[in-house]
Amino acid sequence: MSDSGRVQNLAEALPYIQKHSGKIFVVKYGGSALTNPEIAETTIKDLILLNSVGIKIILVHGGGPEINELLTKLGKEVKFDANGLRTTDKETMEVVEMVLHGKIQRRLVSMINCAGAKAIGISGRDGRIVTAQRHKSAADGNMTGEVKSSNMELIYQMLELGHIPVISSIAPDEDGNAYNINADTMTAELAIGLKAHKMLLMTDTPGVLKDKDDSSSLIPELTQAEAKNLIQDGTIAGGMIPKTECCLRALDNGVGETIILNGLQAHCLLLETFTDSGAGTRIV
Amino acid sequence: MSDSGRVQNLAEALPYIQKHSGKIFVVKYGGSALTNPEIAETTIKDLILLNSVGIKIILVHGGGPEINELLTKLGKEVKFDANGLRTTDKETMEVVEMVLHGKIQRRLVSMINCAGAKAIGISGRDGRIVTAQRHKSAADGNMTGEVKSSNMELIYQMLELGHIPVISSIAPDEDGNAYNINADTMTAELAIGLKAHKMLLMTDTPGVLKDKDDSSSLIPELTQAEAKNLIQDGTIAGGMIPKTECCLRALDNGVGETIILNGLQAHCLLLETFTDSGAGTRIV
Amino acid sequence: MSDSGRVQNLAEALPYIQKHSGKIFVVKYGGSALTNPEIAETTIKDLILLNSVGIKIILVHGGGPEINELLTKLGKEVKFDANGLRTTDKETMEVVEMVLHGKIQRRLVSMINCAGAKAIGISGRDGRIVTAQRHKSAADGNMTGEVKSSNMELIYQMLELGHIPVISSIAPDEDGNAYNINADTMTAELAIGLKAHKMLLMTDTPGVLKDKDDSSSLIPELTQAEAKNLIQDGTIAGGMIPKTECCLRALDNGVGETIILNGLQAHCLLLETFTDSGAGTRIV
Amino acid sequence: MSDSGRVQNLAEALPYIQKHSGKIFVVKYGGSALTNPEIAETTIKDLILLNSVGIKIILVHGGGPEINELLTKLGKEVKFDANGLRTTDKETMEVVEMVLHGKIQRRLVSMINCAGAKAIGISGRDGRIVTAQRHKSAADGNMTGEVKSSNMELIYQMLELGHIPVISSIAPDEDGNAYNINADTMTAELAIGLKAHKMLLMTDTPGVLKDKDDSSSLIPELTQAEAKNLIQDGTIAGGMIPKTECCLRALDNGVGETIILNGLQAHCLLLETFTDSGAGTRIV
Amino acid sequence: MSDSGRVQNLAEALPYIQKHSGKIFVVKYGGSALTNPEIAETTIKDLILLNSVGIKIILVHGGGPEINELLTKLGKEVKFDANGLRTTDKETMEVVEMVLHGKIQRRLVSMINCAGAKAIGISGRDGRIVTAQRHKSAADGNMTGEVKSSNMELIYQMLELGHIPVISSIAPDEDGNAYNINADTMTAELAIGLKAHKMLLMTDTPGVLKDKDDSSSLIPELTQAEAKNLIQDGTIAGGMIPKTECCLRALDNGVGETIILNGLQAHCLLLETFTDSGAGTRIV
Amino acid sequence: MSDSGRVQNLAEALPYIQKHSGKIFVVKYGGSALTNPEIAETTIKDLILLNSVGIKIILVHGGGPEINELLTKLGKEVKFDANGLRTTDKETMEVVEMVLHGKIQRRLVSMINCAGAKAIGISGRDGRIVTAQRHKSAADGNMTGEVKSSNMELIYQMLELGHIPVISSIAPDEDGNAYNINADTMTAELAIGLKAHKMLLMTDTPGVLKDKDDSSSLIPELTQAEAKNLIQDGTIAGGMIPKTECCLRALDNGVGETIILNGLQAHCLLLETFTDSGAGTRIV
Repeated sequence: MSDSGRVQNLAEALPYIQKHSGKIFVVKYGGSALTNPEIAETTIKDLILLNSVGIKIILVHGGGPEINELLTKLGKEVKFDANGLRTTDKETMEVVEMVLHGKIQRRLVSMINCAGAKAIGISGRDGRIVTAQRHKSAADGNMTGEVKSSNMELIYQMLELGHIPVISSIAPDEDGNAYNINADTMTAELAIGLKAHKMLLMTDTPGVLKDKDDSSSLIPELTQAEAKNLIQDGTIAGGMIPKTECCLRALDNGVGETIILNGLQAHCLLLETFTDSGAGTRIV
Repeated sequence: MSDSGRVQNLAEALPYIQKHSGKIFVVKYGGSALTNPEIAETTIKDLILLNSVGIKIILVHGGGPEINELLTKLGKEVKFDANGLRTTDKETMEVVEMVLHGKIQRRLVSMINCAGAKAIGISGRDGRIVTAQRHKSAADGNMTGEVKSSNMELIYQMLELGHIPVISSIAPDEDGNAYNINADTMTAELAIGLKAHKMLLMTDTPGVLKDKDDSSSLIPELTQAEAKNLIQDGTIAGGMIPKTECCLRALDNGVGETIILNGLQAHCLLLETFTDSGAGTRIV
Repeated sequence: MSDSGRVQNLAEALPYIQKHSGKIFVVKYGGSALTNPEIAETTIKDLILLNSVGIKIILVHGGGPEINELLTKLGKEVKFDANGLRTTDKETMEVVEMVLHGKIQRRLVSMINCAGAKAIGISGRDGRIVTAQRHKSAADGNMTGEVKSSNMELIYQMLELGHIPVISSIAPDEDGNAYNINADTMTAELAIGLKAHKMLLMTDTPGVLKDKDDSSSLIPELTQAEAKNLIQDGTIAGGMIPKTECCLRALDNGVGETIILNGLQAHCLLLETFTDSGAGTRIV
Repeated sequence: MSDSGRVQNLAEALPYIQKHSGKIFVVKYGGSALTNPEIAETTIKDLILLNSVGIKIILVHGGGPEINELLTKLGKEVKFDANGLRTTDKETMEVVEMVLHGKIQRRLVSMINCAGAKAIGISGRDGRIVTAQRHKSAADGNMTGEVKSSNMELIYQMLELGHIPVISSIAPDEDGNAYNINADTMTAELAIGLKAHKMLLMTDTPGVLKDKDDSSSLIPELTQAEAKNLIQDGTIAGGMIPKTECCLRALDNGVGETIILNGLQAHCLLLETFTDSGAGTRIV
Repeated sequence: MSDSGRVQNLAEALPYIQKHSGKIFVVKYGGSALTNPEIAETTIKDLILLNSVGIKIILVHGGGPEINELLTKLGKEVKFDANGLRTTDKETMEVVEMVLHGKIQRRLVSMINCAGAKAIGISGRDGRIVTAQRHKSAADGNMTGEVKSSNMELIYQMLELGHIPVISSIAPDEDGNAYNINADTMTAELAIGLKAHKMLLMTDTPGVLKDKDDSSSLIPELTQAEAKNLIQDGTIAGGMIPKTECCLRALDNGVGETIILNGLQAHCLLLETFTDSGAGTRIV
Repeated sequence: MSDSGRVQNLAEALPYIQKHSGKIFVVKYGGSALTNPEIAETTIKDLILLNSVGIKIILVHGGGPEINELLTKLGKEVKFDANGLRTTDKETMEVVEMVLHGKIQRRLVSMINCAGAKAIGISGRDGRIVTAQRHKSAADGNMTGEVKSSNMELIYQMLELGHIPVISSIAPDEDGNAYNINADTMTAELAIGLKAHKMLLMTDTPGVLKDKDDSSSLIPELTQAEAKNLIQDGTIAGGMIPKTECCLRALDNGVGETIILNGLQAHCLLLETFTDSGAGTRIV
């Protein structure tokens, strides 16, 4: 593109920048955008671009594949119960925490810092910002948890100091036992606690499809009522159900907008922020 | 351009944004960029774009043509002395101040506010931020002045509060008499006082030309020594001399970079900030 | 007066100073106090004296005569409609803004600065502190406006920084078109927005008179009810009606006291502040 | 005086107010201004007037006569040694502290509070702002002290909070033993520590006289050199010597001006602050 | 004790420190803990220890015996009326203020400062934090008072600055007349005004006894209802009644806990704060 | 111990508390104090006790044994080079980071939070507080590093907010590659950067021994010169040499005191802080 084309294009971004500057975006960072090094690099830079035009970014990350990889290396079986919850005994949880907090989060913090912004990696444990309890569907001894309470003061302080918080979806109970929290759920709880303007769930799908076998049947925007109907009538199915429910719960609790983002689309974060068409399905 | 092309392009702007965020740019806003309504609208939006990525903007404006227009309507002769200084008697100065501070600056403040940013219009008089004395080449009674002292505290406070200061190049002497200050000079003094990272002088020329009759002979960048040589050997001539001297004086006094900007080029401010090629001649 | 007489007199001012220190006074500055250079100089010094004993001063100024003068010089007719509103087409409005903001306000800022205090001149445009709409009685195309909304944050910041805001009674609509606001009305809106302790309207009359032909029949103080009765029974008539209504509106909206001040009386501001008898008519 | 005369007079005070506003005055409050209830009331109000025009007041008080009175009532002998220092054994010191800190300072704090300002009474003990050691001329066991060190932070905090500190001239040594400090000396040390603009020593004399028997021979102003000469040649004699030396010491250590004030003259503080002639002898 | 025993013991204090850190304790400091120099020294150090683990201490002191002593020396009769109120004429009140504010409070400030903390001594007069009126049971001319109003801002500022306020139980009426306030009452009013966590009244008794002749019959803790019953049935009698009522009044007005503390027991403040058994009777 | 003995003992701690309150202690937390759960619990509580008396604690931890354990489980060989440096290839470094940052640091943060204080876990990566380069003795590809630069701003902010920073001894180079830093060295660098009052290196040895085979030959305190001599003459040998050199380097760069602490002794941190005898060898 010519220089004049490039700056013309920048000039056209102004209304989008003005609309979003000063807002809080909570981003669930997962899927290929996390595991594919090239997409990851682009995604991190896009996040920093959002940050540099005045948007306050909080990143929540998952990391299932790398957890499984280490478990396998250590000879531990990767198990899920009838409800689809990972069977996480204490020993497995130790591995989960090492991988999420000691490896993936470290990589994200490093990438953000190397790309010129300032990141701090934490989990629910630090300053006890999020506490957990055993997930209501989890068997005794299964360290799969759900959020019990949250306190966003430390996050606000980090944002105030100009840092991007990178948060591993782990939280402790009263006795300090770590629980593995579903990253989408953690993202929703933080978005609610921060009264975020946008919650973005990065996925490896195009978004909500009218016909799940036709990726061109993407529904770009849904109202809460429409989303509920689509769950009812089976259009939204499988793993898309809990994601949609996360969005609905967030919207019910003061979050401005929620997006099931197509992480496979290049610059999906920028598309969502700086174009009208977006990338994925917006539930509002 | 496709949405994906557009965001790709935005993504490429990140290194430029990171380089300039938090820096102070003092811009002499004049020429066609000021008088042509369409270019003016673009220019204002470009300034706000710079502001929205964290650059602190101070605008200094001139307004010769509109001064002449009102003088003529009022039946006053438009005169310049042998040194090229406007012959500004007290009555003319009153007209100068009304046009600069009461009309042009008002228009700029209005345009910035309507475009979604916050502007405050002031001159050297307000909070006595700049004081003047009669220009050393001006005859008695000629209210053409030069800067005597400046105090940037109020400007810093306005920047701190998120406002864009729009400054008419007028300053008072100890007794409150207004002097008309050359807008380039005023810009340089403010850039020096604020230890600006960049001083940009918008002109209606392409910049410094090797061959003044060949607009394709633009010199994109000069060192201070080179600029002095070009003045010496006559390559820089006419009205370009005082502009170049303004740049040299600013550089000598702590300003980071100075640019004689081609205001006729669309989005010249963005070209200068977000491309390597720039728009005009950079003296460093 | 002997030195001992002088300090005795100063000592007697203490209770008045204690009563008013820290309070906000919004002053409509107009009439002879504005046009007569000698009275103007005294008035400015009196304002600074009030400021120096801890009173926070906001100045709103008009400027009818000088507007007319420039309009006439430019060959434009000075017209008022049947409601007494100035017929202000866009071209006239440009002249109004140049005279108010570019000449009179400049003079006031200069006088305050030269007298040792710090002033900043603004209008409704700056930081968009006041927005306007066409006056309900004004014909299409008449840029006579009324206040639509106001935001006092910038004024508070200026007061906090120790500046005296000098405000031209002009405000923009959403599209940046300037409207001429009646200075008394502007004063009342600012007094209401700032929850001022006192609103002072400087006039060229002694105040409200029992017998309009007998200047010794001044009524020094009126309750709101009494003022309404006097409008009803015709004692308050002509130009005194809108001024009285301004006062009543301000009192209804949280302003502490309103004074129709006799600007022809020397040191009227000091008389009002530092003596029991005052100068003009106080409506409480 | 007529109201118009009164406000005219107030108006004339403006330059004096502007000159002194924001400055620090440290006042030794003693003599008849302290002991005569009527003069005291006037003096307190004058101090509050100074305070209300932005001058920061610190009051240091003595109280010899009331100390003697209580000592006599308690059957203790009032003694002075060969150097003129009060012979202050520990029991006498207890009486000194009760009278200065428990009676006179209380009265001053009360008068200031009742007159509408805010006072806090302290001595060198509080927050250990001043520490003492035995006076170099004092015999063993004599609790007459001199200042050893001072720390003005607490005073600055009180001034910041808008309080007038009233300070009894007592200070402790390392072990908490109280010492009686000469109030003039204490005043000078505080003025030095606060880099005061003015130090005022209230006395029951007209000031420095050319002819000590002719009260009309007052010298209104002296340079430091002149003051030293007058001590040398005996013009300054007796109790005026230590007062003059206090002034010289203060001037040598950064205090702006020192005044030996004629406390017998009504409104002496206002005369000194708001007239050119002053009241007493100024050493500069 | 061995070093290892000592630090073991310190380690065991942690839960108590964590429980109390950041809380406000208002302490009535009287009885032997005040008059016996050895106990006083221990008590002051204990207060500083509480302060050094983050507890905010406010000290209110009485001083009956030393008042009587000076009155006797001065030949004034020590009288109490039928209600047990001291008959305090104005002359007596002067003595009361000198002793409390000029002697005892000075000693306490000195001891705290010498022990390494920072104290400031004040009474109700300073900054007018507490105002008084004649006690409802006091005869005309009797300067025995009761609290009329209080304003804790100055106290909060002192605590913020890290100082320990030491407060003499004296307060002025509107006209500045000093009143002697019962120190227990003053303590309760301050505890209420500061919403203290604990109010501690130091006494020379073991606390509330089941059998007043058997000091081993101490009741370590009472509810408000129980305390009222014990007053009813005469178990709480004599001087213990007003103390108990002080506690009940404080509890009714937002104070967390009240303790009638056994000042005769060594380190009673530490026992109350750092052990479960406490020292005296806690009313909750 | 009786309650009275206990509080007596607390009272005796006051001078030690006063001496250390407000000071910065940087603690290398390692050895049995880290690995033995019971000692760890005591140590954490002792750290919180120090924190609760106003000492600012920064914790740096190692974790060799647990790294080895996971490496072994993963079938990786645990290797050290000729210089005793761990041979840390990139894969090993990943394990190091997971264990230090994802397991041990998590446990410490959890223990501190559960014990009632607030901790945040970070490494050199977060906010890029410490950057590293390859250790000068390390072979190519060995991710054993040494500190290149440090920036303590983030640490100060955490201390200001009342958090205890827990720091894993890992730091990135410019490209984000993680390096394993010796924890003693990391501690020294942080102590230097923070101008710490005390640096404490917890070890599993009694300290410096005169006769390395006689644990009763402990040298409780050494000057820098003495320590250098003991290295010279071989008294200090083996692993004690680098620890001693760390201390010497810290002392040379502004750290107040350094202690090689006997982590095997119960409550060693309290012994060092609250007794004169200490625990281990102090180099000053």
